[in-house]
Amino acid sequence: MEQVVNLAPIGLGLIIIGLGIGIGSIGKSAMESIGRQPEAASKIQTAMIIAAALIEGAGLFAIVISYLLGS
Amino acid sequence: MEQVVNLAPIGLGLIIIGLGIGIGSIGKSAMESIGRQPEAASKIQTAMIIAAALIEGAGLFAIVISYLLGS
Amino acid sequence: MEQVVNLAPIGLGLIIIGLGIGIGSIGKSAMESIGRQPEAASKIQTAMIIAAALIEGAGLFAIVISYLLGS
Repeated sequence: MEQVVNLAPIGLGLIIIGLGIGIGSIGKSAMESIGRQPEAASKIQTAMIIAAALIEGAGLFAIVISYLLGS
Repeated sequence: MEQVVNLAPIGLGLIIIGLGIGIGSIGKSAMESIGRQPEAASKIQTAMIIAAALIEGAGLFAIVISYLLGS
Repeated sequence: MEQVVNLAPIGLGLIIIGLGIGIGSIGKSAMESIGRQPEAASKIQTAMIIAAALIEGAGLFAIVISYLLGS
């Protein structure tokens, strides 16, 4: 496809902003909760990995699609 | 379709921002609740996965549609 | 339809941002309530799914309409 302006890098930046907001807030609360209740660390870590993986999966998928559209 | 400027990557970025806000706030509260009540961890995790899956499903659907519109 | 600039992907991104804000805040409060009253988990989860499904339904409908307008 012939493009005059290729916006894929801007899209990639927005993807990482979203990913940072999402995984950032999950990780932030996980850290605070483990700090408050260290004996629940394994449960918190399991739930943290599940929630972060959902965002990560969609984010990596969107990065690949951005590459395909931008090239 | 012939396009001079392809806005699909921007759309992809906005999708992941929405996904990050949504799953991020669900995961954040889930972490805090598990930290406060570790014995309810399995119930909280189940509800977290249901709510996150609703956002994830619509998000992945929108990513695929963006790719179809952008290519 | 001939379009020079196709704005449908931007619309898709805004749809998912709305969906994320909506389901995110519902899920956030559901997590907090289950953490405070784990014995009411099934009631909270049922109400959460109903409220989230309303946003999900309109969101998926809007995604399909965006696709029809953008293609």
